Amino acid sequence: MKLFGGIEAGGTKFVCMVGADADNLVKEERFPTTTPRETIHKVTEFFLPYAKSGELTAVGIASFGPLDLNPDSPTYGYITTTPKAGWKQTDLYGEIHRRLQVPVAFDTDVNAAAFGEQYWMPENRSLDPFLYMTVGTGIGVGVIINGAPLHGLMHAEAGHFALPHDWQRDPFAGVCPYHGDCLEGLASGRAIEARWGRSPAELEGDDAVWELEAGYLALGLICVICVLSSERIVIGGGVMKQPGLLSLVQRRVTGLMNGYLGTKAVGEEIAGYITLPALGSKAGVLGAIALAETA
Amino acid sequence: MKLFGGIEAGGTKFVCMVGADADNLVKEERFPTTTPRETIHKVTEFFLPYAKSGELTAVGIASFGPLDLNPDSPTYGYITTTPKAGWKQTDLYGEIHRRLQVPVAFDTDVNAAAFGEQYWMPENRSLDPFLYMTVGTGIGVGVIINGAPLHGLMHAEAGHFALPHDWQRDPFAGVCPYHGDCLEGLASGRAIEARWGRSPAELEGDDAVWELEAGYLALGLICVICVLSSERIVIGGGVMKQPGLLSLVQRRVTGLMNGYLGTKAVGEEIAGYITLPALGSKAGVLGAIALAETA
Repeated sequence: MKLFGGIEAGGTKFVCMVGADADNLVKEERFPTTTPRETIHKVTEFFLPYAKSGELTAVGIASFGPLDLNPDSPTYGYITTTPKAGWKQTDLYGEIHRRLQVPVAFDTDVNAAAFGEQYWMPENRSLDPFLYMTVGTGIGVGVIINGAPLHGLMHAEAGHFALPHDWQRDPFAGVCPYHGDCLEGLASGRAIEARWGRSPAELEGDDAVWELEAGYLALGLICVICVLSSERIVIGGGVMKQPGLLSLVQRRVTGLMNGYLGTKAVGEEIAGYITLPALGSKAGVLGAIALAETA
Repeated sequence: MKLFGGIEAGGTKFVCMVGADADNLVKEERFPTTTPRETIHKVTEFFLPYAKSGELTAVGIASFGPLDLNPDSPTYGYITTTPKAGWKQTDLYGEIHRRLQVPVAFDTDVNAAAFGEQYWMPENRSLDPFLYMTVGTGIGVGVIINGAPLHGLMHAEAGHFALPHDWQRDPFAGVCPYHGDCLEGLASGRAIEARWGRSPAELEGDDAVWELEAGYLALGLICVICVLSSERIVIGGGVMKQPGLLSLVQRRVTGLMNGYLGTKAVGEEIAGYITLPALGSKAGVLGAIALAETA
């Protein structure tokens, strides 16, 4: 049997799956993100039996970043300037490739999630560009153009631009160690928790919290739409599980765009334009398997 | 002789050129932008002799927008929701194609300029994504990815997202009829003139003007870089002729990014990353000719 591996490398856990495809998974396991050495060891132990039996055809990695995605770079496949303690300059691709000896596809968690949402949902494949935004511990955007993840200077880092910040209404300074009140600094799960002193889940139903959050996310989405002219934006991550948040965000995007683009997508058809992930919280790891299948 | 036509359709004038390539131009003329009927008539009269002789192989149009670039749309090739009086829903592509009876390539002025800066400058061709930002009457961004202009829902409209706006420092409300103080609303040539009561050229050397301008442009560029991870940004348009403005912008971009991306391009090598157009003010019309050559 031809099997593919998927690894979603996150700041708190690594999710590993093996399967023939998204509907035929053989095994799944989660490992807490400790040191690179220990975590990568556990991940490779998980896949090694399948590699040894010859069934494991390829592995895909969907990783937190920033990453070096330039195949010509001496540090290709590294996690680079991450603020995550102990993980700066970690050769994630190289370690896994060396130990498993199968082709390894490597990309950001959000590029993989975007790729997965297109690959496993054939109705999404004609949408170009196709975007996945995660609103979790951090905020990131994955971009698929012409069927392939967007690389360039590096990859999208669309949580890190500045937004209009009304200090009187929201005197919170933001949590980004690099930029303070950038999109991630104001609207990530970490920002919500630091601002209100409670986790997003504990703040359910508090209108002031979610009106503010929707406003920031909408401002971020407007940027992304204006720059990329995407045909669809999937928006996932833990924070988006808040009931009602998606429709608040949709309404704010339509309001802020104010009819300028003259398209129904950012008007009366916004509910089909900004959507939750069809693959739910598995978008990342199933995206990694999709990357492996096309590696 | 095989000739190609280029039309830069602007809000104040239409620039028309015929030539074998960028270095072998045969004829050039400018027509003021009056009514669509009159302007398009003059443009087609300019090209008609070359069309009739059979030398005119194709024409490229680089137009102000927003545009309908979807070939399957009944209004493909139209200028759509423009605030320019008399030009809403103008079938620019169709009129020119009908009268000249040669293949016509059609894109935004900024997509064409970006395409031209790559096409005529072979050293730029490997840079992907490659961007052209114009800072003139309005602000727009053209995007080339995988060698082709970015289309999607429509095209980039990267002058129309909101920026941090310090109302105390700059109590100016912005000039965008749709969004007030978006990037274009705060930093376009029209905004500068409305804020200070004098044209950009008349404000030469006034540090307060250009510090403020550079700050807004840098905030806009940070967005664009974070979302597209471009390998180069060319920045042109009338406002960028201000001496010293480019280096102010470069410095502010590096400062705002604060080392986050970990790349030299947005650090010590910023002078080669954000550059003025190699084709100068002819980037748009020569880009239109490049589009015609590849049509």
